[in-house]
Amino acid sequence: MPVDNFSSYFNPQGIIIAGARRSMGFGFDIPIFLKEHGWGERTFLVNPSGGELHGMKLYQRVAEVPDPVDLAIVIVPANAVPGTLEEIGTRGIKHVIIESAGFAETDDKGKALQEEVEATARRLGLRVIGPNCVGVVNTENRFASTDVIEEALTPGPVSIIAQSGVFGNILLDFLHERGLFISKAITLGNRIDVNECDMLDYLDDDPTTEVIIIYLEGAADGRRLWKTLRRVTKKKPVLILKSGKTPEGKQATASHTGSLSGEDDIYNAVFAQTGAVRADHLDHLLDLAKTFTTQPLPKGNRFGIMTSSGSMGALATDIAVSNGLVVQPLSPSTVKQVREIAPDWMNVKNPLDTGPSMIFNQFLPLIMNDPLVDMVLAIIAVPYSAMKLIKQLGMKLEDVFGDLESMRAQFPQDKPLVMTVVGHGDFVDDISKIAGKSIPVFTSPESATQALAGLWRYSRMRQDNSC
Amino acid sequence: MPVDNFSSYFNPQGIIIAGARRSMGFGFDIPIFLKEHGWGERTFLVNPSGGELHGMKLYQRVAEVPDPVDLAIVIVPANAVPGTLEEIGTRGIKHVIIESAGFAETDDKGKALQEEVEATARRLGLRVIGPNCVGVVNTENRFASTDVIEEALTPGPVSIIAQSGVFGNILLDFLHERGLFISKAITLGNRIDVNECDMLDYLDDDPTTEVIIIYLEGAADGRRLWKTLRRVTKKKPVLILKSGKTPEGKQATASHTGSLSGEDDIYNAVFAQTGAVRADHLDHLLDLAKTFTTQPLPKGNRFGIMTSSGSMGALATDIAVSNGLVVQPLSPSTVKQVREIAPDWMNVKNPLDTGPSMIFNQFLPLIMNDPLVDMVLAIIAVPYSAMKLIKQLGMKLEDVFGDLESMRAQFPQDKPLVMTVVGHGDFVDDISKIAGKSIPVFTSPESATQALAGLWRYSRMRQDNSC
Repeated sequence: MPVDNFSSYFNPQGIIIAGARRSMGFGFDIPIFLKEHGWGERTFLVNPSGGELHGMKLYQRVAEVPDPVDLAIVIVPANAVPGTLEEIGTRGIKHVIIESAGFAETDDKGKALQEEVEATARRLGLRVIGPNCVGVVNTENRFASTDVIEEALTPGPVSIIAQSGVFGNILLDFLHERGLFISKAITLGNRIDVNECDMLDYLDDDPTTEVIIIYLEGAADGRRLWKTLRRVTKKKPVLILKSGKTPEGKQATASHTGSLSGEDDIYNAVFAQTGAVRADHLDHLLDLAKTFTTQPLPKGNRFGIMTSSGSMGALATDIAVSNGLVVQPLSPSTVKQVREIAPDWMNVKNPLDTGPSMIFNQFLPLIMNDPLVDMVLAIIAVPYSAMKLIKQLGMKLEDVFGDLESMRAQFPQDKPLVMTVVGHGDFVDDISKIAGKSIPVFTSPESATQALAGLWRYSRMRQDNSC
Repeated sequence: MPVDNFSSYFNPQGIIIAGARRSMGFGFDIPIFLKEHGWGERTFLVNPSGGELHGMKLYQRVAEVPDPVDLAIVIVPANAVPGTLEEIGTRGIKHVIIESAGFAETDDKGKALQEEVEATARRLGLRVIGPNCVGVVNTENRFASTDVIEEALTPGPVSIIAQSGVFGNILLDFLHERGLFISKAITLGNRIDVNECDMLDYLDDDPTTEVIIIYLEGAADGRRLWKTLRRVTKKKPVLILKSGKTPEGKQATASHTGSLSGEDDIYNAVFAQTGAVRADHLDHLLDLAKTFTTQPLPKGNRFGIMTSSGSMGALATDIAVSNGLVVQPLSPSTVKQVREIAPDWMNVKNPLDTGPSMIFNQFLPLIMNDPLVDMVLAIIAVPYSAMKLIKQLGMKLEDVFGDLESMRAQFPQDKPLVMTVVGHGDFVDDISKIAGKSIPVFTSPESATQALAGLWRYSRMRQDNSC
């Protein structure tokens, strides 16, 4: 088995938990998690005290664990890590996740201990994720080196690389609420060995990963990151949230995972040159992921907006134009078709303000089919009282807004379509149901527009590179 | 009654609905709304057909309506508006809300009609809100000239001035979901008479209005806006979302309410000079409102962060420093106090990364009391699985995070405190409950920080002006 094959991390044959224990914490939880998710027979708990935990045998030494084992999860106290690595190396295991904290992220003593761990791992030829991380998640086989909630295990197209363990773990708690489901997740921690580039390479080849999102505080190896991003983004979009934009922000993370963040301008240049899409903030990162996982890449940057409120159309237009999109008039043929069905008072332009015309479902296909439009944002802002009335009259929301999901399937497949619904929470939920999984629904015009602008930025890079 | 007393708009003695009708629409809904909210006896419906609607008499002419009436809500078709205004003027009513659309927002014919309406109103000495609006809401007496959902009628400290009718109406549908409750709302529409300055003046004197939020596409009178804002912001914060940042964004609204937006740089200068706080986008506007209505003004810009995740602290720091806040070390006395209770591995600095120490409730008061900290953001990012375990162990979230609401009451009253909870929706809800109404809870570190930065911007202006 070559050392750079990471499959043991994501699909291990047998797993050692060094530091399983009876008191609250990872050492108590992770064995339960693995047992409940079908990994009980392949999981071997190690604790010098021996005995049993959760009905599983506690081996006193790593050497006693039977074959096959190819992954070790280390949760022992920091100062016991070097010795544990010796046992692991001797046992012939090559892949290790060190979840223990108390290293370079704390103080000089921790830093020295981390150097010892690094030297030990190198001498033994181990690959190491961590320390100070929660390791990996693979939804395909429901394997995880940390306790993950059930909702996070629904397989999906997004894979996550997070430098911070908490960050990665927390994302898994609520991504499903935003309609995002993952394939793999990796938290890197202090990165004494495995870094973001290793994982980018792995995910590049991973057939179930379609979109990669990264939370980064600083590159482990800037030159390699440049080369790796450049290669990976040709195949898969890479969305990056990077902290440390300001010196103070850098300092905030410097000791956190023991890395000093680099200069922000350089990062911006690297991301721009390599086609990685940088998110402005946490919500933006998730908005981008939602759009990249559901929408095709646009052929151009011509942005068509239809809206039931002129104000929301104007807010979207401002953000679009400020972010490289073009809001230009609709094609004469579309204008003609819209005029044929539009009420007299309607001003037929882009954004198309449909007002209270209530034939949203007839306008949307016309905008989508416009040859001068490369991507579409449909904004619904209708007072809830009007919606209640529609329901009281025995009408369905679909009668007004159309069967959006099936409509989407008929539209040209190279045109992204996203929606914004501003209003009562129940109304947002109702429209989201009609929109289905193929149309992302946002709750502000600006966030939807920024997500599409990111999609275009990536699409343009792909076009430039293919020329 | 002097013409510039707007109390008839918000607390009318008697109301005429010109254009009450039996078919779906405002003319059908508004009478129901008024009747259901205790205004039935003071509401008089007018429709030339006569008869009854919702058990209320339909007067055939405005002249037939009995005394007292001091407000007319006009919902007749656009071309019937001038004639209706004549009837209203003759009847001695001085305050009118024209909700009818089909004026300058449509085409040249509509523009001409609007000019006629404007001339008629002026000749008759009428004050007019509209046309193309939904008028006013007053939660104190549950009066509204439009159909508003029940949840929006809970009285609160925010008043809204919106140039767009839909915009204002939609806000009322979901502000309560964000913990925001209103005193008054006014939608201005095409502004042939009453404009944002009139309403700013009114709200300036309104005892139940504490914070004013404005959605603006363009100023009706730039010079007056400057003067008015300068005066009002000395007493009450004014938060503004303005579209038309770009030429295309301006064009999007130009015909919408018949106004041409001004130059964005000038607006920025006006807002900066007058102490109005401009929101970057819709969510930012609401985040600002949530913070301004619950937090005191900070004395300075020194920002203290405590966080259970270093990554979130770094993201907050970046945004803070980019927006005029200072993230500097904690005072020696605070550092000493924190060290006394902190686990060994904790790196005591600002942001204070508490990690999984689980004594969040002990750290927060120390940061709040730090003499070198003017405002605090507390970030909770804890894996949901850990929270579930805490509950299984029979502990309450309060045991870990403290009784935040009562704790807040003990803290120095001049220090804003906001929270960010990143994670599972249920966890966000649970913490929000503990935080109560006095601590706003955000779901991203950046949005919380931006809200505090806005609070500081306003506070600094108030300090500058009082010198």
